[in-house]
Amino acid sequence: MNPNSELSPALQALIDRADRALAAALPAEDAPPAELHRAMRYAVLGGGKRLRPLLVYATGHALGCDDPVLDAPACAVELIHAYSLVHDDLPAMDDDALRRGRPTCHIVFGEAMAILAGDALQALAFELLAQAPVDPATGMAMQRALGRACGAEGMAGGQALDLSAVGRTLSLDELEHMHACKTGALIRASVQLGAMTAGADTATLNALDHYARAVGLAFQVRDDILDVEGESAVIGKTAGKDAAADKPTFPSILGLDASRTRLAQLTDEALAAISMLESRSELLIELARYAAGRQH
Amino acid sequence: MNPNSELSPALQALIDRADRALAAALPAEDAPPAELHRAMRYAVLGGGKRLRPLLVYATGHALGCDDPVLDAPACAVELIHAYSLVHDDLPAMDDDALRRGRPTCHIVFGEAMAILAGDALQALAFELLAQAPVDPATGMAMQRALGRACGAEGMAGGQALDLSAVGRTLSLDELEHMHACKTGALIRASVQLGAMTAGADTATLNALDHYARAVGLAFQVRDDILDVEGESAVIGKTAGKDAAADKPTFPSILGLDASRTRLAQLTDEALAAISMLESRSELLIELARYAAGRQH
Repeated sequence: MNPNSELSPALQALIDRADRALAAALPAEDAPPAELHRAMRYAVLGGGKRLRPLLVYATGHALGCDDPVLDAPACAVELIHAYSLVHDDLPAMDDDALRRGRPTCHIVFGEAMAILAGDALQALAFELLAQAPVDPATGMAMQRALGRACGAEGMAGGQALDLSAVGRTLSLDELEHMHACKTGALIRASVQLGAMTAGADTATLNALDHYARAVGLAFQVRDDILDVEGESAVIGKTAGKDAAADKPTFPSILGLDASRTRLAQLTDEALAAISMLESRSELLIELARYAAGRQH
Repeated sequence: MNPNSELSPALQALIDRADRALAAALPAEDAPPAELHRAMRYAVLGGGKRLRPLLVYATGHALGCDDPVLDAPACAVELIHAYSLVHDDLPAMDDDALRRGRPTCHIVFGEAMAILAGDALQALAFELLAQAPVDPATGMAMQRALGRACGAEGMAGGQALDLSAVGRTLSLDELEHMHACKTGALIRASVQLGAMTAGADTATLNALDHYARAVGLAFQVRDDILDVEGESAVIGKTAGKDAAADKPTFPSILGLDASRTRLAQLTDEALAAISMLESRSELLIELARYAAGRQH
């Protein structure tokens, strides 16, 4: 399925914009060290939902900001996301050989090059963000926000919690905290960077952060529900069997019905949080609905 | 051997300062995710020459800058260096089980946690640098400089070149280019960040960059010479045998005598480059001599 087909033409156009900006920001395939550059481009330019760049653009739009000034933060968050997938897929981590229907980076380029490609993508994200055409004080605050979102209290910390969660029973609070770090922190940073680029005031930043927390968690609840529904359709596996599996999920803790209820609550919460925005929040509204309703 | 014993009390005091600043900047061992925090602290706080922080402080001193404003860039470059060692030591990379006489990070914490600890250290470096008490425009330029030094055109790129060099014959130019990326870029960034923090003008920045390039390369030539001398003392292996080994080195390409001559030239070059600094460059002079003459 075309990842774009569930989205409006406006968001599809922004996916294309992000793809072009990323292709331009990444080092050229024919310049040395070519193998590293190829691994970096392979990891980033192979499709994907581009949810994080879309959140940067959508937030900027809602606050009256033009696309060109949003390109740097939009690319930065996607580079971070892409590097995290490359490292996640490594044999020592999730040991995945396929992603988005293609062999993973380490399968194509070898483990050592995949580790280096991930490392270089993280550095590029910060370098690129430091080129954002914003006033320097805002730029420094954006660097701090991205650094915090990626580090031990954010994405990397969430992955560490995830590592130690396999095979254990987690409470709902523990599960939500793990996801809040692992995927939530970068999703919040995406909205935050868009808002900071647009010069949002503190009240607006807080409202948008509330939105982002709800959308980030909804995205994950939907992921877990899709796992169950997908498996049910394919192999007739029931939610009850999923609950017995090794990896804690929302359906395994709450059950499928309560997970759907939680998803609806989170969507309502996200939409309520941005109701105070006076203008042009239609892309944010669409993304909140997409995070909760997507079919893949 | 105590790594500090070859250095003056002034530089030893700065090593202690860097160690304290790093210990304060790293997340606490008892706060969750505790295992990740422990891996990060283990990787950074286990000793080491602290050459890069020393270059930050020494450069700042030469330009009349006080220590406290140099702590953030000094820590940032050491966090980057430490993360690169953790990833370098991984089985898929150099597969080293020992560093500085202790088991490497992945031996103690497992490969997955070592990958994450490295990733989180890189994020922390940028977050910390974005807290440097400098004017924001300078701060943004410092972020760009560090990002460039760490990425595909800097350290990570040099490691990729190194990967592809094993077992191949390199020219002297190729070898110097590989080292200029792999270790040189971060050493140059260390001097650059110190100079930028002190508000150096362009002429001073250029002179110091000349110094840093020479010191970075001298450090590596000395490394290669120490390998030969160390091995000669221990197992009677000659420079001639080293030249036939898999890994290209300065002695293997130039021979040992010409490597020593190159080392002396580089030291002269470094010292000449900073002769235009009017005041307080004694720490930079000592570090240039140390890089070329160190015994370990």
